[in-house]
Amino acid sequence: MTPQPLLIVGSMAFDDLDLPSGPARDVVGGSATYAALAATQFSAVRIVAVVGEDFPQTTLDDLERRGVDVSGIERAPGKTFRWAGRYADNLASRTTLDTQLNVFADFKPKLPPAFVDTPYLFLGNIHPALQLDVLSQVKGARFVAADTMNFWIEGERKLLGAVLEKLDLLVINDEELRQLAQLHNLRLAAKKVLAMGPKRLIVKRGEYGALLFDAEGTFFVPAFPLEEEIDPTGAGDTFAGALLGALAQSDPPDRRTFRRALHLASTVASFCVEAVGTRRLLSLDSDAIKQRQADLRSLVHPGD
Amino acid sequence: MTPQPLLIVGSMAFDDLDLPSGPARDVVGGSATYAALAATQFSAVRIVAVVGEDFPQTTLDDLERRGVDVSGIERAPGKTFRWAGRYADNLASRTTLDTQLNVFADFKPKLPPAFVDTPYLFLGNIHPALQLDVLSQVKGARFVAADTMNFWIEGERKLLGAVLEKLDLLVINDEELRQLAQLHNLRLAAKKVLAMGPKRLIVKRGEYGALLFDAEGTFFVPAFPLEEEIDPTGAGDTFAGALLGALAQSDPPDRRTFRRALHLASTVASFCVEAVGTRRLLSLDSDAIKQRQADLRSLVHPGD
Repeated sequence: MTPQPLLIVGSMAFDDLDLPSGPARDVVGGSATYAALAATQFSAVRIVAVVGEDFPQTTLDDLERRGVDVSGIERAPGKTFRWAGRYADNLASRTTLDTQLNVFADFKPKLPPAFVDTPYLFLGNIHPALQLDVLSQVKGARFVAADTMNFWIEGERKLLGAVLEKLDLLVINDEELRQLAQLHNLRLAAKKVLAMGPKRLIVKRGEYGALLFDAEGTFFVPAFPLEEEIDPTGAGDTFAGALLGALAQSDPPDRRTFRRALHLASTVASFCVEAVGTRRLLSLDSDAIKQRQADLRSLVHPGD
Repeated sequence: MTPQPLLIVGSMAFDDLDLPSGPARDVVGGSATYAALAATQFSAVRIVAVVGEDFPQTTLDDLERRGVDVSGIERAPGKTFRWAGRYADNLASRTTLDTQLNVFADFKPKLPPAFVDTPYLFLGNIHPALQLDVLSQVKGARFVAADTMNFWIEGERKLLGAVLEKLDLLVINDEELRQLAQLHNLRLAAKKVLAMGPKRLIVKRGEYGALLFDAEGTFFVPAFPLEEEIDPTGAGDTFAGALLGALAQSDPPDRRTFRRALHLASTVASFCVEAVGTRRLLSLDSDAIKQRQADLRSLVHPGD
């Protein structure tokens, strides 16, 4: 077990959120931001992303202070990617109000030379052509995980198929799994998607937890039931980031490592929901994680 | 640990089901039928219910052959309670097409003298006035559990409140919990409902599993992910029946007993979904239960 660094490629963004607790504007977000803040609890992290001139240097400093190598974050002329959404009163669903790609529209991931040997790689839900481009640059990757989204499943199935063939792990939500497999039954859909290439598949089910499917069978981790649910934005990315960070920490990943990493991922993702944006993740320490991990374990352990 | 008998009071019915796999007519169902078939895997069962002249004697014989005392099942002049429903293609939702109360409209539970000392009692989701009436008859009950439904939560909140005060365990689904507590957050809703009287609360979440809330904390059991989902009718009653049967088997119930019973309940309920009506429950044996219980345990056990 030798901890390894993790490279995360994804979006950095501003989010405008209409939450049941009120509006929140110019919230720093994006899949790479959430995933990196979560992963850095467990491993050294490198980010490749693009931000505009308006992105706060303080956020980059925050990341750097937590051991994130931000030298792969390009600052491009123009504005940062911006997403606006409105959540239902019960937080169970959300509507996209606006998406402005801005500098993200021309994002071409360029890996600093020091990054090309990173053994662990997490590809956020960017265009599959960009995911393939990153894969061609990262010569040293031993473990490649990716997320994707409805938009690419619908419009870029062929390119996405080429990505799937190269994956050690695909991390998607249940609706994306069903769309990708064109089957409703989760177990059958999981079998079909595993046959498309990924060695392992993790299906995120929001407040209901997540399922791991692989050659060794099926494993389930519940979401931690919270009393205070404020903002689920980024919880899925936080889950994936913590998972990959925990896997990179306990390299090489085996059955036991995977189950432990899933528990840690669910644990860290639960904190994300407790405050707006990345606020709770920024104040999170290992004691709080350990305590909640014990609570989560006790939640499912028949013998305790 | 001395196994105790369990008394189940609830409905026996015919169901007309429009399932994705096709229509199924005159399917023997009802909460008491499903709960009894499940409970009898673990304990001696007594039923109090009413059927019409059209109810098949073969079903009563089936129950009796499994050790169910059917002497409290009244055969009344007229037709048996009948429910008709249509399931969505993905089985995730259903619509009631028709309800004919028939002999169930005048159901007044009458306990045979031999039943009044039954130590374990499960009250199906009948009118809270009838639940209170049964409670006044069962002098020897040491452990009382009940289900309820949206109809009584909406229209009989006061009478239902009187039932709740007498319960060792309330078993309801998540939407009913939210309706009863008038709160969306599950944990807060559970706290509020526990404050209404029941010592323990189990929240059923269908394909997502179930949560136990009590003074000792929270415990979660997932639903077993099935490849073949045919008919979810009665799965919630099967869950409750297996749970109560397992509790009665390992009397008196403690923390460990409860967790074991929840795993058994989820296990047995999963079989219910694999065939139309009670068909799979009728052919179920303890070997199949043991195998799936091991699979379910492995599904959530981080160390296995």
